[in-house]
Amino acid sequence: MGNVRARVTGDGVVIEGLRGAPLVLAGPSLRSACSCAACRDPGSGQNLLDPALIDPAIVPTSVAIDVDGALVAVWPDGHESRHARAWLDARTESGVPRPLLWDAMLQDTLPHHDHDAARADPAALYRFLADVRDRGFAILGGVPCRDAEVERAAELFWYVRETNYGRHFDVLVKPDPNNLAYTARALPGHTDNPYAEPVPGLQLLHCLAQSDEGGDNTLADGFAAAERLRREDRAAFDVLARVPVAYRFSDAGADLRSERPVIQCDRVGRVTVVHVNDRSFRGPVGPAAEARAFYAAYRRFIGLVRDPAAMVRIKLAPGDLLVMDNRRTLHGRAAYEAGRGLRHLQGCYADAGGLASKLRVLARELGYGHADTGLPGADRERDAAEHLLGILARRGDESYLGEPISQLEHALQAAHAAELAGAPMPLVVAALFHDVGHFLHDLPEDCAEQGLDSRHEDAGGAVLARTFGPEVAEPVRLHVDAKRYLASAEPWYLGVLSEASILSLRLQGGPFDDVARAAFKARPHAEAAIALRRWDDAAKVPGAATPGLNHYRPMVLATARAG
Amino acid sequence: MGNVRARVTGDGVVIEGLRGAPLVLAGPSLRSACSCAACRDPGSGQNLLDPALIDPAIVPTSVAIDVDGALVAVWPDGHESRHARAWLDARTESGVPRPLLWDAMLQDTLPHHDHDAARADPAALYRFLADVRDRGFAILGGVPCRDAEVERAAELFWYVRETNYGRHFDVLVKPDPNNLAYTARALPGHTDNPYAEPVPGLQLLHCLAQSDEGGDNTLADGFAAAERLRREDRAAFDVLARVPVAYRFSDAGADLRSERPVIQCDRVGRVTVVHVNDRSFRGPVGPAAEARAFYAAYRRFIGLVRDPAAMVRIKLAPGDLLVMDNRRTLHGRAAYEAGRGLRHLQGCYADAGGLASKLRVLARELGYGHADTGLPGADRERDAAEHLLGILARRGDESYLGEPISQLEHALQAAHAAELAGAPMPLVVAALFHDVGHFLHDLPEDCAEQGLDSRHEDAGGAVLARTFGPEVAEPVRLHVDAKRYLASAEPWYLGVLSEASILSLRLQGGPFDDVARAAFKARPHAEAAIALRRWDDAAKVPGAATPGLNHYRPMVLATARAG
Repeated sequence: MGNVRARVTGDGVVIEGLRGAPLVLAGPSLRSACSCAACRDPGSGQNLLDPALIDPAIVPTSVAIDVDGALVAVWPDGHESRHARAWLDARTESGVPRPLLWDAMLQDTLPHHDHDAARADPAALYRFLADVRDRGFAILGGVPCRDAEVERAAELFWYVRETNYGRHFDVLVKPDPNNLAYTARALPGHTDNPYAEPVPGLQLLHCLAQSDEGGDNTLADGFAAAERLRREDRAAFDVLARVPVAYRFSDAGADLRSERPVIQCDRVGRVTVVHVNDRSFRGPVGPAAEARAFYAAYRRFIGLVRDPAAMVRIKLAPGDLLVMDNRRTLHGRAAYEAGRGLRHLQGCYADAGGLASKLRVLARELGYGHADTGLPGADRERDAAEHLLGILARRGDESYLGEPISQLEHALQAAHAAELAGAPMPLVVAALFHDVGHFLHDLPEDCAEQGLDSRHEDAGGAVLARTFGPEVAEPVRLHVDAKRYLASAEPWYLGVLSEASILSLRLQGGPFDDVARAAFKARPHAEAAIALRRWDDAAKVPGAATPGLNHYRPMVLATARAG
Repeated sequence: MGNVRARVTGDGVVIEGLRGAPLVLAGPSLRSACSCAACRDPGSGQNLLDPALIDPAIVPTSVAIDVDGALVAVWPDGHESRHARAWLDARTESGVPRPLLWDAMLQDTLPHHDHDAARADPAALYRFLADVRDRGFAILGGVPCRDAEVERAAELFWYVRETNYGRHFDVLVKPDPNNLAYTARALPGHTDNPYAEPVPGLQLLHCLAQSDEGGDNTLADGFAAAERLRREDRAAFDVLARVPVAYRFSDAGADLRSERPVIQCDRVGRVTVVHVNDRSFRGPVGPAAEARAFYAAYRRFIGLVRDPAAMVRIKLAPGDLLVMDNRRTLHGRAAYEAGRGLRHLQGCYADAGGLASKLRVLARELGYGHADTGLPGADRERDAAEHLLGILARRGDESYLGEPISQLEHALQAAHAAELAGAPMPLVVAALFHDVGHFLHDLPEDCAEQGLDSRHEDAGGAVLARTFGPEVAEPVRLHVDAKRYLASAEPWYLGVLSEASILSLRLQGGPFDDVARAAFKARPHAEAAIALRRWDDAAKVPGAATPGLNHYRPMVLATARAG
């Protein structure tokens, strides 16, 4: 349990020895959190102790950490409360999942999932929904092309939210449309229905038929654009986060109006909501003096969300279902010719809280103890894994150390070879990331030719160890030593090495001597490193077919979680 | 059209001669509001002009007011926009309906409506829904006691919001309840599901069966309590409006969590949302240093919402349906004995924006041009009418000038007599309010005995003229002169007067002479004043049966609107 200590102060309780700074809990907060059967109904989990009746000045008469690491507090009336170590840990750091911001670079690793798998396998469903939560969207392929199937998809996680557009709505060219969505016009990126109260939290779009030309969807990350605006023009950000915009939709049966700022932040300043809808926009609300500043800020923000460098393009195929966080992800579409093949999408809305709830319930059922239960770590690891994938996606096109293929091709070929060899998942992930250290130093690409060793294996191993277990990090850390081992143990090995690799071998110290060879062989993970080395050496075939980076994403995330 | 003038300034356009201060419109706001067919799609009413493309520095090259009072602006590219006078008027003042705050005094005038009327008559439905909007709740009586009828009631205005509790839910004692609502326990006042995202905007509760004893509902106005807290303890108000509270609900199929402050205000500081739910409360979020202040403020606020002086009690009868603004009105219930008659409610949720939309659509269909269209005035008049009703409800128990009945009994008897006589609606309203002037002065109740004339008819007429037309205000202003007229014109009249009335007649100047009598008879509204006087004189019968004040409320509001 470590050396955890608790003591009573004038205001409450201080607990030291947990991760990070000492945890300070106010007396009434601790008292109201008691979950014993007298304070919280065992059947419903609801409070029986009314928080309004707690003395705001209450402090325990004594506290202690018991043998299980739980905090035991005794209160002035003799009541005893007990808080498990996990509960204390969860309070040391915010458990709120952080969004993973993205831009056009995501194009190569669009979060794509399989409908049948998501329906059959709770872990697959979890990964799909977690992408919606963290990326603001995900695509489910292979959804049956049946009417109202989009409603069944919503029921994978929650309930359909019926609106004035129906339980679901058809997006196609309609006569006398009550909404420009029902024309063949291009639609710039937007979020849906900011005039509604409440605004739909999630939108689902199911492709039943696609036009031959045009009709592509564009997506942009409203949170990323807002953060960019905050960095580049703080005053403009503040105007958009302060001035409400009036929105209105009106037809024969409805007259919906609301006023909302374009950007909303939570109490610590994190962007939590973005609304953009030019069609129902009715102008900023408030003094005229702010209006001009608003329009300038708005124009700048819209420029950011419509920047091609911020957007990914998706041409939905029949059976594809796009699920979006409607208060974050802007979706638009290219114009299409109404005659050239009937484009037909069906959409519906659902509540954001339902998706978050389903993720928690799935995590509970799957035993993902640390996944979104408020315990720290899970999201940081996931975030880091996404970061590593992003590095490969962004920098993967760089040439690979004088080899005739790119870094990304090399990584994918190595991972593919590992997968074909039936390697365990962590080793496939290791193969994918074995050269990630190359992106972590500032030496020039041709450093080997200049006689410099970047020690990329150490850098890569260290960064991977932050996110994954040793099954991933150690083979990477050892994969250069494995070359030195093989060059010593297998005389024919030098024959499989490329010219560049022979050059770097010299910089890396050359083949091991007998002592070093035996010492290496005895190290944990040496066998895995040797296997990885062989896939590495073979992964230099120009034009070889491999799965895309996206294929490895679920493995990477699952491995990070279990790490 | 009055003397309305418009001119271009460096920033936009200034329009003078409308109600109140000059109207200043920023150039880009005016440009983006153009609703011509090129700027706004005639089919859908949606913008074709993208607001992000408007030059933030744009100003018209010229503006003019046309013969219809519309503002015509010519823009640098030659585009001409036209804004009707009504559009300009709507911009002079906020059209946001203000809530009508209430406390226990509302008990006598609970907003009660009839289901069959609401279903058959759009005006009756409007009045019912407007009460929900303005009071935060209303009751619909006579709803058929059928399963799921509560969903049909929601469909009177919008769509059922399905949640983890189903499309509708049964509130009765259940085995293994997942919610304390499904026990016979007393529940203190609360709003529902603050852990949901989004929180239900409206809750409907339909009584199918009631227990013989207990099970009464209590209601409290969260907005009124918040405003009272702001007046009495600004620091406590600020803490509750700043510190988020964590809420959680969890059972086998759901794990819903959110963080929300107890009080939320809009950009101008008006209270817009109140959440109170002790069962799912999980404590304030943020630094421990604020927690103690939070608990003290929370305790104080809960004291206000549980103050008997803040609450009304309703024992729903079978067929009664209660509709509540779930982000304003706290509902609770007394404990009941599960065995003593089966208490059975069915509830469901619906979106707040849907109710507001339905009110606008109804107002459009009913020709209520000024009701919630953004034009000023309507809500102020409605508010004033409610204020006058509130005065009668609150002070109606005071004794009536030495008569053996109360002020409220006297008012109701007079209005009832007018109604029985087939008087036009404004005159019934005049009869109801004819003595309202008695509550507007600070003279003692027995002022007549002390030789003082309060001139209550002038005070009453003046205050009524602010809210109603002369058909209401003038008969009230003249009802004392009518007594002097009758005392002169009808020698037997003094015989019908009570002793107190004869006493006051002397103070009021005694019977008219012939000249004054003829002059009075020639005045507009003299006949109505004489009729009112006769009902007034007859309305002093101890124990006479009359409708309650609530019966007259729709008339009062309709008259105020048309005034």
